[in-house]
Amino acid sequence: MTHHPSTRSDASPQREARARPVAPPGPRRGLGVGELRLDGGFWGALQETNAEATLRHCLDWMEQLGWLGNFDRVAEGATGGDRPGWQFSDSEVYKLLEALAWEYGRTGDPAIDALLNKVVDRISAAQDEDGYLNTCFGHAGQAGRYTDLSTGHELYCTGHLLQAAVARVRTVGRAAGGDALVEVARRAAEHVCREFGADRGQAGICGHPEIEVGLAELGRALDEPRYTEQARLFVERRGRGTLAPIALLSPAYFQDDVPVRDADVWRGHAVRALYLAAGAVDVAVDTHDDDLRAAVERQWTRSVERRTYLTGGMGSRHQDEGFGDDWELPPDRAYCETCAGVASVMVSWRLLLATGEVRYADLIERTLYNVVATSPRTDGRAFFYANPLQQREPGADVRPDAVNPRAEGGVRAPWFDVSCCPTNVARTLASWQAYAAFVEEAPDGSGDAGAVVTLAQYAAGDLKVVLDGGALALRVTTGYPHDGRVQVEVIAAPEQPVTLRLRVPHWADGAELTGADGTTIAVRPGWVTVGTAALAAGAVVSLDLPVTPRLTWPDPRVDAVRGTVAVERGPLVLALESVDLPDGVALDQVRLDPDVVPRTQGDGAVVRARPVALPAGGSGTPPFASGAGGAGGPATRGGAGPDDGGPAALDLQLVPYHRWAERGPSTMRVFIPTTRARRTGSHPHAPAHPRPGSTPQGRQLNDEHDTFTA
Amino acid sequence: MTHHPSTRSDASPQREARARPVAPPGPRRGLGVGELRLDGGFWGALQETNAEATLRHCLDWMEQLGWLGNFDRVAEGATGGDRPGWQFSDSEVYKLLEALAWEYGRTGDPAIDALLNKVVDRISAAQDEDGYLNTCFGHAGQAGRYTDLSTGHELYCTGHLLQAAVARVRTVGRAAGGDALVEVARRAAEHVCREFGADRGQAGICGHPEIEVGLAELGRALDEPRYTEQARLFVERRGRGTLAPIALLSPAYFQDDVPVRDADVWRGHAVRALYLAAGAVDVAVDTHDDDLRAAVERQWTRSVERRTYLTGGMGSRHQDEGFGDDWELPPDRAYCETCAGVASVMVSWRLLLATGEVRYADLIERTLYNVVATSPRTDGRAFFYANPLQQREPGADVRPDAVNPRAEGGVRAPWFDVSCCPTNVARTLASWQAYAAFVEEAPDGSGDAGAVVTLAQYAAGDLKVVLDGGALALRVTTGYPHDGRVQVEVIAAPEQPVTLRLRVPHWADGAELTGADGTTIAVRPGWVTVGTAALAAGAVVSLDLPVTPRLTWPDPRVDAVRGTVAVERGPLVLALESVDLPDGVALDQVRLDPDVVPRTQGDGAVVRARPVALPAGGSGTPPFASGAGGAGGPATRGGAGPDDGGPAALDLQLVPYHRWAERGPSTMRVFIPTTRARRTGSHPHAPAHPRPGSTPQGRQLNDEHDTFTA
Repeated sequence: MTHHPSTRSDASPQREARARPVAPPGPRRGLGVGELRLDGGFWGALQETNAEATLRHCLDWMEQLGWLGNFDRVAEGATGGDRPGWQFSDSEVYKLLEALAWEYGRTGDPAIDALLNKVVDRISAAQDEDGYLNTCFGHAGQAGRYTDLSTGHELYCTGHLLQAAVARVRTVGRAAGGDALVEVARRAAEHVCREFGADRGQAGICGHPEIEVGLAELGRALDEPRYTEQARLFVERRGRGTLAPIALLSPAYFQDDVPVRDADVWRGHAVRALYLAAGAVDVAVDTHDDDLRAAVERQWTRSVERRTYLTGGMGSRHQDEGFGDDWELPPDRAYCETCAGVASVMVSWRLLLATGEVRYADLIERTLYNVVATSPRTDGRAFFYANPLQQREPGADVRPDAVNPRAEGGVRAPWFDVSCCPTNVARTLASWQAYAAFVEEAPDGSGDAGAVVTLAQYAAGDLKVVLDGGALALRVTTGYPHDGRVQVEVIAAPEQPVTLRLRVPHWADGAELTGADGTTIAVRPGWVTVGTAALAAGAVVSLDLPVTPRLTWPDPRVDAVRGTVAVERGPLVLALESVDLPDGVALDQVRLDPDVVPRTQGDGAVVRARPVALPAGGSGTPPFASGAGGAGGPATRGGAGPDDGGPAALDLQLVPYHRWAERGPSTMRVFIPTTRARRTGSHPHAPAHPRPGSTPQGRQLNDEHDTFTA
Repeated sequence: MTHHPSTRSDASPQREARARPVAPPGPRRGLGVGELRLDGGFWGALQETNAEATLRHCLDWMEQLGWLGNFDRVAEGATGGDRPGWQFSDSEVYKLLEALAWEYGRTGDPAIDALLNKVVDRISAAQDEDGYLNTCFGHAGQAGRYTDLSTGHELYCTGHLLQAAVARVRTVGRAAGGDALVEVARRAAEHVCREFGADRGQAGICGHPEIEVGLAELGRALDEPRYTEQARLFVERRGRGTLAPIALLSPAYFQDDVPVRDADVWRGHAVRALYLAAGAVDVAVDTHDDDLRAAVERQWTRSVERRTYLTGGMGSRHQDEGFGDDWELPPDRAYCETCAGVASVMVSWRLLLATGEVRYADLIERTLYNVVATSPRTDGRAFFYANPLQQREPGADVRPDAVNPRAEGGVRAPWFDVSCCPTNVARTLASWQAYAAFVEEAPDGSGDAGAVVTLAQYAAGDLKVVLDGGALALRVTTGYPHDGRVQVEVIAAPEQPVTLRLRVPHWADGAELTGADGTTIAVRPGWVTVGTAALAAGAVVSLDLPVTPRLTWPDPRVDAVRGTVAVERGPLVLALESVDLPDGVALDQVRLDPDVVPRTQGDGAVVRARPVALPAGGSGTPPFASGAGGAGGPATRGGAGPDDGGPAALDLQLVPYHRWAERGPSTMRVFIPTTRARRTGSHPHAPAHPRPGSTPQGRQLNDEHDTFTA
């Protein structure tokens, strides 16, 4: 197949500005990647590095390892048993294509467009006549098509191809001859519908969900309801035990244990569970299936409240890269795969558009700052696969030319054997704008209240959305998340009334809003509305969020971090890294004093801590000692207590978790053991620093926690 | 090959009585299985159930699943791609043969002997002319011999065959024509030496150690130094990265990362690491390689002190069934494979014979009571594969006819897909006597001090060892471990002086010994000598061990159980099981009051506890709350503290850990969160119940721990 240059015939500038990965029916539409220009700042810098370094980094590695060459071999009929890469390596190429498409759509950089089309040429050349496209199955010397649905990942790869095409359709529009990538995806989607349709072909599903979300969105992008119907079929077929078992793994591993609409919580492989949930929301919204939508909301609620880390990370187990039981959240063995963070944002964003509930935007912020932003190294050329909240042993340095099995060892790696994360980060950063805000308009623009524009995430830059009544242009000035002030200046406002809403994060107790008239009011967490009257050109409103460091206590059921406390600052989880400890103090010795209020320093905080002496070895027994004494007991396990002349208290610097391990191999903790509370008086367990806003339950909670930490 | 009836021509009764799995050169010899007759009691009952139920249970399952039939198919030349069972299923048959051999050697039950020989007939018929014996490789429709050393398990299987033969040689002696099983093993060993010898054939090693220990002991049993040399070669070749990598696993998984003599700690797959260590001790002792022996002792010390559970269980990770980092000992995800417990006893017993150090006997006791005895259900027909110290969700009931992937779910299963544990338990219980005592004699019996007989483990029964100076016969009367009194009556004593030693376990602070003259003295943990003068027929000595329940605190570096305490009673770890909770109290709510001394009740203990209310859900945030309050924080995470009118304190029954999950699916904890210490005064953190024996360090340790538990 030869290269179709992407023509722009039917693409209007406004339509392209609105280009976004998720466009469900309903009153809310997400911001387009072209509707917000980031002006540096936290996300602007990450997006810039992604464009300048990561995209080509990924392309170079996949070329070097032969993952791109796999497409050439299929095109040349040169397939055989020596195919490099895992069976799912095609999907990495497709995720990179999606990233390139968003990048081009956002910037119009012709070099990016050329890069994309070069890759598309090689992919389209590998597509079979009937639309089947996969470099691991169905050709000479390979297993037959769809002979291994459980682990073959064929439909998974196709799903990512379709998501890449969605980005392309929406950013370059549908050319007369069709864009090459869009055309490849359309033919692949048609093939899937033929093979897996309701009344013909296989009734199978893929061991790794993803095709559902790809079909649903491509169906929207191409106005093709058959794709949505196929996605619905895949969602409904799941959970009925039809997938061939994988040795030593249960059907829950790939969510084939319980039908989606019957499940109460996410379980099994986290990325699989979350991609499936995202597709299920798409199907539920498109088919007005409120029962299915409610099921995913129910699963989200229980999974977030019982199976999600402070970072927003999901996946407690290495064994199956999966969710653990409720409250099973070990910090050291936290898997928190980067891709699960990306997938979690996908699910929450869909639920936010479907419901308008602020809690989904809160989790998106937590996950973006503490999982997605944690994976890439500052230079954008190395990545974490797993994102643990505690590192016991310093990771081994990773050679820049080495392929790592998985970057699980506390050091970011340039590339992995299973390299799903780098390209997932790339496509997410390239389309970050799409998760920053959403717009509600009456379909015909005649709603009395007019349009509502809601800022869900904060970043410095210029936002311009064209509403039926005209353009709303805003300039956001902020140093968020390191500074809590978010200033929004109205550059242009439509004639029709428009309402601006801002998000006060759930942690922002004591936030204040200063209106255009200069009056300041206290605002509670949730959506806060800026009066339409304030939306005249030149008007300025400011939101002040308290980003002073705060102590965060674990729920008492999270056994693995009992007796510890974490420190957060705004949306950032902070961490104590061994490289910030004074000589002679080991991370295991640190006890944080919760009675001393942490103070802001740099991008992190300083906490008061004191080191404790640790028991000596030599007992020849397991590390447990009888309280009653005895040989092998305390006598040999003896350690100095806090009051027997150990080193004095010291102040320790905490850094943002997302930037740990940038200074060489180190050990690290997010949850830090606490000292015994020292305050005396009738209520020894009052909160460390009570505020007017804190509630009786709040104090009781601190009691409850202090019974473990004091 | 036809069945050779096992003749007894050159077997003397005394030699058979001394039959034991490990017979190294050196001054110490372990007790023979025929030298101690158990008289009921803890181990007598388990041994009886093993004989009556487990041996046939294992045989029936392996027949039903075709694991025995695999040998017939090889004999009939009917092999193909449809072979049932994992590649290592032969080894289960061999471990059962070893169990049958010990059982017959101990009891002389001809039915057991017949059972054994029936199986041996089928195995020997499957042996190739050149001695190669494996049902998974090397025949029609199978992969070639030794084409997959990393995961093929061929030499691993052979190693278990050799261990079975060792049991046979030592229990029936070497018949003129040779016992059939011994002959099969000898030919297999010769084949291995030919194929893997120093100067010819492959220089490979097996991905799963076991051949080393099998060759070493068979070399001793058959006085064939070439087998010992081959074992030495396998040990020395290891740790040099010669095994083909397994995807996503590091060479440490099968200890091919560091040579045995250079390693400081056990790592990777626990059973592999421990079988290798056992073989390394055998080689070190036989070749007088003190450097190698010291390496294993060093690895034992660090691994026990930092990577071993309170139960003696080893293996913190499910991902690779392996050791974790130092201090990584999560109770809920503890793997503690039953086979690793068996392997740990194998290593410690060898080190005990090599060094005479009591700490090895202490760990053997801990592991036998809390890992090995935990695996089999009371009826001997279901088993645990993994032995976690916390069960969060009740396990699903296991159907008696169901093959479980692995019994990891908190319910014992009749059989597993990977069923290494049942037969490992069977061979260990069948030869329990071999770990109970050891004898030291000057080779020529002329040592001035005469012989020393040391009781390392306690069980009611009659012990008779024939020494050069005559027989020493002892009757041990005890209700141990539930009762702390061990009474030893001398039934017969040799004319030459003989010294009796007893073990005072490391936890037995306050033990007392009452001599034959009725005088009672306090004895410290370690070996305690009963004067030779006391060893006249009729003399009675009593050891009183304090088996009152005691609190055991975790080392502060074991993050996963910070803020909790365990309760032990004698050698038994106790557990709180949900079925023992009153209605309306959940396991998560229980807080143990360490200021109230636990009291003995039944086989366990009663502790004082109080339930706490737990935070309500509904926050829509991860289970962590800001100490500063705020929406999504304490207001929605609020929970009642201990002092706001929650239920009053209650007494809870703890049961021996080894018997948990016998009363239907349940949740369980060994480590129980504690209440805040209530005692006031100048030293609020004194030990819960100080004793004369406790030291300043002991108190400081309790300080240290109370800073987490109070």
